[in-house]
Amino acid sequence: MERKRAVILVSGGLDSATILSIAADAGFELCALSFDYGQRHRFELQAAKRVCQATGVSQHVVFPINLSAFGGSALTSDLPVPKDREETELSSGIPVTYVPARNTVFLSIALAWGEVLGAYDIFIGVNAVDYSGYPDCRPEFIEGFERLAGLATRAGIEGDHHWKIHTPLISLSKSAIIQRGLSLGVDYSLTHSCYDPDSLGRSCGRCDSCQLRLKGFAEAGVDDPLEYQ
Amino acid sequence: MERKRAVILVSGGLDSATILSIAADAGFELCALSFDYGQRHRFELQAAKRVCQATGVSQHVVFPINLSAFGGSALTSDLPVPKDREETELSSGIPVTYVPARNTVFLSIALAWGEVLGAYDIFIGVNAVDYSGYPDCRPEFIEGFERLAGLATRAGIEGDHHWKIHTPLISLSKSAIIQRGLSLGVDYSLTHSCYDPDSLGRSCGRCDSCQLRLKGFAEAGVDDPLEYQ
Repeated sequence: MERKRAVILVSGGLDSATILSIAADAGFELCALSFDYGQRHRFELQAAKRVCQATGVSQHVVFPINLSAFGGSALTSDLPVPKDREETELSSGIPVTYVPARNTVFLSIALAWGEVLGAYDIFIGVNAVDYSGYPDCRPEFIEGFERLAGLATRAGIEGDHHWKIHTPLISLSKSAIIQRGLSLGVDYSLTHSCYDPDSLGRSCGRCDSCQLRLKGFAEAGVDDPLEYQ
Repeated sequence: MERKRAVILVSGGLDSATILSIAADAGFELCALSFDYGQRHRFELQAAKRVCQATGVSQHVVFPINLSAFGGSALTSDLPVPKDREETELSSGIPVTYVPARNTVFLSIALAWGEVLGAYDIFIGVNAVDYSGYPDCRPEFIEGFERLAGLATRAGIEGDHHWKIHTPLISLSKSAIIQRGLSLGVDYSLTHSCYDPDSLGRSCGRCDSCQLRLKGFAEAGVDDPLEYQ
């Protein structure tokens, strides 16, 4: 029997490596989609390629989209990446690392590819616990996008397919994500999380993303296999 | 007083030239957005530039996005463009010129730029009369996207701005669009509509888009200023 295809958004981080294995475990044929969106460094995309190879995806598209043309975020401009923030700061307000409308853009492109592939299942590793300040990581946003997908596409008019945006991590803590991934055999040494690595790609250990990752591994009682500066 | 900014999607066609003038007439500062999305020819983008210059936009971004990476449409692949179709064919089913999820992708990118600009008004020249077969030209889709915009962005969380997707042409016939544009001084000789022009950029007069345009001018009782092959 032919397997159902799914489009999986793969950034190369810990979360996306985990959803890739969750989708594989659910029996989907994996069509991986990464974005070259003007990130400040290339290590993320290298990690995405490693993770895709290790998980046996059937195809991997790296889609160029220059969101840095618009600026507005520390991840796509030369605004400084915040370091050593306290936990209360991490969970208050919308951080400067928020990229305007990023997940809307990414999901739209996944929708375009999914419609061509006949893949009506899309996996995205959003998390509403750690990224509570990002509007486009909230369940309301995901539900809104799923409704829109039904209105936006051929499947929506012809009514023969139902789009499903899968967010298996949305309500999990970082340590729960890591435990789930380890149970599925994810090799986290292949992933990259740091917003501001050195020239060798080693993680800073101090940006929001590194802090959340390190805390997750500590709470899971497991060593992070990454090398830090 | 500072004028409110709007993002206007400008393809270079008749409809987008008209909405640009409608937005100018409504008093908006015009931020024009065009897409270089792997169209089969460049005349569309040249027309977009001409129209923007003539209308006095404050900025014009041509955003590269390679939707032809996925194929699936006659406009972005080497599928043949249909010619000389009867009117009944023009209005039945989803045409091969439909580009999967195109308007979702375009509006998402407009949303990203709008959020950076502080421009919460987006104009798009969709039409549900002539393009009744395109899922993403229907009012339900536009309303769905407007709801999503509120959920997807900083404005959606902070609640201080309301996104509005303007579709002033959605229920107008082509001749009514032309009459509205002419009343606002639109110079339609600057626009380009043909899906399959010759190497000099002259319109074929036979594809769906040319046929709709010519019928519109005929019904408006005005000569089309374009040169046809």
